[in-house]
Amino acid sequence: MRILVVGATGTIGRAVVAALSADHEIVAVSRRSTPLTVDLAVPASISDMYRAAGKVNAVVCAAGEARFAPLAQLSDDDFQFCLNNKLMGQVNLVRIGFDHVADGASFTVTSGILARSPMTGSAAISLVNAGLEGFVRAAALEAPRGIRVNVVSPPWVTETLQALKMDPSHGLPAAVVARSYVRSVTGTETGSTIEPSA
Amino acid sequence: MRILVVGATGTIGRAVVAALSADHEIVAVSRRSTPLTVDLAVPASISDMYRAAGKVNAVVCAAGEARFAPLAQLSDDDFQFCLNNKLMGQVNLVRIGFDHVADGASFTVTSGILARSPMTGSAAISLVNAGLEGFVRAAALEAPRGIRVNVVSPPWVTETLQALKMDPSHGLPAAVVARSYVRSVTGTETGSTIEPSA
Repeated sequence: MRILVVGATGTIGRAVVAALSADHEIVAVSRRSTPLTVDLAVPASISDMYRAAGKVNAVVCAAGEARFAPLAQLSDDDFQFCLNNKLMGQVNLVRIGFDHVADGASFTVTSGILARSPMTGSAAISLVNAGLEGFVRAAALEAPRGIRVNVVSPPWVTETLQALKMDPSHGLPAAVVARSYVRSVTGTETGSTIEPSA
Repeated sequence: MRILVVGATGTIGRAVVAALSADHEIVAVSRRSTPLTVDLAVPASISDMYRAAGKVNAVVCAAGEARFAPLAQLSDDDFQFCLNNKLMGQVNLVRIGFDHVADGASFTVTSGILARSPMTGSAAISLVNAGLEGFVRAAALEAPRGIRVNVVSPPWVTETLQALKMDPSHGLPAAVVARSYVRSVTGTETGSTIEPSA
C-alpha cells in the first residue's frame, strides 16, 4: 500500500511509520519538517497536499493541535483554535480526502483518552476528541467506494510523559500505540474508536 | 428553585417547563417567542440574557440548531453553523453562566442519540452531540462553587416523529424525556450523560 502519514515526525507518527514502512510505501507529511507539508487548519492546504501526494491507499493522521488550560482561562479563541485544528483539521482531512484516495482506502485519525477520561484543563481537548469520535462513527456510514474511517484514541504515551518529566508508569509505549493504527490500516473495520492497550 | 429554561417553547422545552413549573419558578427563554430571548450563536447575547434574567439556581437548555444532510452535501459553512450554534452555543451557555448562577446551581444541556447511534445525514450532528458530551464530562470537574453540569442525550421524541410524519413507535414521549432533565436539576449528579428511557 501507499500510505500518507500526517504528523509523521511526532512521537506517535514516527512509531506508526516504523511499524508500517517495512511492508508499505510511506508518504510522510508534517507541518514543517518534511518535503510535503500541510496546515490542517487550512482546507486549501489539505487539498494541495492531496494533489501533491498523488493516489494513496491509506491516510493516517497523528497530528492536530489543541490547547490544555484551566477552563476559566480557556478563551473563545482557544476553543476556536482547537475546533479549527485538531477537530475540523482531521474532519476536513477525511471529507476532502474522499475525492483523492483510492477505492477501498482507509482513514485513521487521532482523538485521545481525554474524550472519555477528562482531567482538569482538558475541557477543550475532551470536546474535540469526543466530537471527532462522533464524526467518525457517522462518516463511516457514508464513506464512498468502500472507503473505511476509524479513529485511534491513545492513552498517555510513555515517551510523551518522559518528555514532560511526568511519571511514565501509566503510559503506553508509542510502539504499542502504533499497533492500533496498523490494525485500522490493514484490517477491515470501519466507524470504530480503537483504544490501544498493552 | 428559580430555573432558566432556554428553548422553552420547543417540543422538549415545553415538557421540561410542564414538569418543573409546579414546584419551581421558571424563567422561559427562546430565540424569538418569549419576553426574554437569546441567540446562542452570539456570546454577547448569552451574557445579556443572564444579566436580564437575574440569579438562577438552574439552567436547562433544550435548544441549539444543527444541520442534517448527506455528508457529501454538508459544506464548510454547514459544519461551522453546527459548531457555532448547538455546540459552542451550549458550551458558552455554561462557560458564561458560571459567573451568573447561584452557588450550587446546575446546568443541563442537550445532545442526542446520534452521538452514539449515527445515521446517514448525521455527520455534523453526531460530531456536535458527542463533542458536547465530552465537554460536559470535563467541565464538571472544574465547575466552581458546587455548580453541577450534565447533558441529556434524548432519543427520537414521539411528538417530533409525528410532526415529521415518521413512524412514532420508536420514539419516547416528550414528557418521559423531560424526566431526565428533572433528574439532572433536582439530583446531585454531575458530569453525566443522561440517556432517557421509558
